Amino acid sequence: MFIQIVDLLGTIAFAISGALIAMNKRMDPFGVLIISFVTAVGGGTLRDVMIGIEPVSWMRNMTFVYVIIGSATFAVIIRKRISYLLKSLFLFDTIGIGLYTVVGIETGLVAGLHPVICIAMGTMTACFGGVVRDTLCNEIPVIFREEIYATACILGGMTYFLLLQFFEDRNYLFIIAGLVVIIIRLVAVRFKISLPSLYKSEDE
Amino acid sequence: MFIQIVDLLGTIAFAISGALIAMNKRMDPFGVLIISFVTAVGGGTLRDVMIGIEPVSWMRNMTFVYVIIGSATFAVIIRKRISYLLKSLFLFDTIGIGLYTVVGIETGLVAGLHPVICIAMGTMTACFGGVVRDTLCNEIPVIFREEIYATACILGGMTYFLLLQFFEDRNYLFIIAGLVVIIIRLVAVRFKISLPSLYKSEDE
Amino acid sequence: MFIQIVDLLGTIAFAISGALIAMNKRMDPFGVLIISFVTAVGGGTLRDVMIGIEPVSWMRNMTFVYVIIGSATFAVIIRKRISYLLKSLFLFDTIGIGLYTVVGIETGLVAGLHPVICIAMGTMTACFGGVVRDTLCNEIPVIFREEIYATACILGGMTYFLLLQFFEDRNYLFIIAGLVVIIIRLVAVRFKISLPSLYKSEDE
Repeated sequence: MFIQIVDLLGTIAFAISGALIAMNKRMDPFGVLIISFVTAVGGGTLRDVMIGIEPVSWMRNMTFVYVIIGSATFAVIIRKRISYLLKSLFLFDTIGIGLYTVVGIETGLVAGLHPVICIAMGTMTACFGGVVRDTLCNEIPVIFREEIYATACILGGMTYFLLLQFFEDRNYLFIIAGLVVIIIRLVAVRFKISLPSLYKSEDE
Repeated sequence: MFIQIVDLLGTIAFAISGALIAMNKRMDPFGVLIISFVTAVGGGTLRDVMIGIEPVSWMRNMTFVYVIIGSATFAVIIRKRISYLLKSLFLFDTIGIGLYTVVGIETGLVAGLHPVICIAMGTMTACFGGVVRDTLCNEIPVIFREEIYATACILGGMTYFLLLQFFEDRNYLFIIAGLVVIIIRLVAVRFKISLPSLYKSEDE
Repeated sequence: MFIQIVDLLGTIAFAISGALIAMNKRMDPFGVLIISFVTAVGGGTLRDVMIGIEPVSWMRNMTFVYVIIGSATFAVIIRKRISYLLKSLFLFDTIGIGLYTVVGIETGLVAGLHPVICIAMGTMTACFGGVVRDTLCNEIPVIFREEIYATACILGGMTYFLLLQFFEDRNYLFIIAGLVVIIIRLVAVRFKISLPSLYKSEDE
């Protein structure tokens, strides 16, 4: 139940982020809807297909389809009031990866997968929708840019499994893991923090 | 039976469109065959994998493999007689999306999916092969260009389910839906019609 | 047993090739790990998903995960001693496609697929990891370059099924097929051999 709410919130965040970037690319209404949809369900679809959950989640639950259509419409209506499209995009994207990391880990746990694989599933759920969105919109995909992105998801996932050794309430742990992802990314972008590249140190 | 013929015709159209663009890119014979193959089966493969029809359709039916090899060979042989490679490409591509939209909807219906999901399956079956073809050939994917493409598939799918309220013969409806897709795209490209972008109206 | 060793060796080769190109792109440690992982499991994942082997192989066998993490770490440690990063990349990539072509064919045979489909599975297993690696690293994918790449895999696969008419020991045939792939690619790159394009002959 709890995880379904998190999934829906992530869906809303990514559907809005997809609609914003598509409008920014001057796409027509159907284009905006398609990008919104792909951004919201891309990561989860890849995860479900690789685990073998088929038909994939969003096909069996029309709630997601309606929520995405609603979120995209909402983004279209309020677009004049959003002064800083790109800033909002960053915010919704960051909330999205935090929520989706948690959803991906939970899906992996339910399928009985190893913790390392669960962290991979969480990272994939969080990052892949944005990669497809950026690729289809002819933007440089987020994970290429000089920022901590997938790394935040991996660290959030590690935090979850570390805390699992000491605590038992998974719902609380999910909230903490999601917040870790969001805070790491916000702090990294705010203070321009990035991990050292391995190439540079080679030159020394 | 009827839908299998439509599927085969769509396969021929897309296999030829793939071979044409690959030859245009000066690919070697195996490259032409691979692009021809990917264009013809790309959309259906994604659809089958997401619904859970595995091994995917073309792996279980060698007819498709032989038809694709034959179509690619045919395109190679007649290439000197095709004066306007790009014009033919447009034609085969448009026929392809019309036929594949119908095949995708039918596959969704057989799997018992919701009409909205069926339309999404139709659009995906029609558009994804071309996207992979263009990406592998380093072309700007068709759906990015300033034309009605995926929109035509969505409108064709909507027509199908609207008419289903009044008529019962699905084969006739499939023909109408496929023609709607083809005509909308032909008219849109001919008269340079496109839906208004949502971004522009924001500036007003 | 034999094929599992081949699979592990291919995994090591591709994990190292992925780590090398990621370091060359100045990625951070987590970026290097992700590219290493994607390169090593990309082709096999696509193959498993299309055949319907789910959860995909590497999720059910932690050996692969540990081998990839180990190979990536090894590549990071010895990077200063590798004078010619690109040359090593070419070598590991070529060994990788030879080994993976064989693994893909064997997986197809076990699933009871037609020889032509098995060759397609081998080619896909071999080529797709590299395509994803290059796409994520913003490089021109290997299969676009003017070299024999997928063609080597197809010819290796054909050799396997031709020899199967005369010999019975599949392990020996796998070794021969893998070597055919590697030798064709090495010779083609060394002597700048490529198949004639079909476009050129059109101009004559």
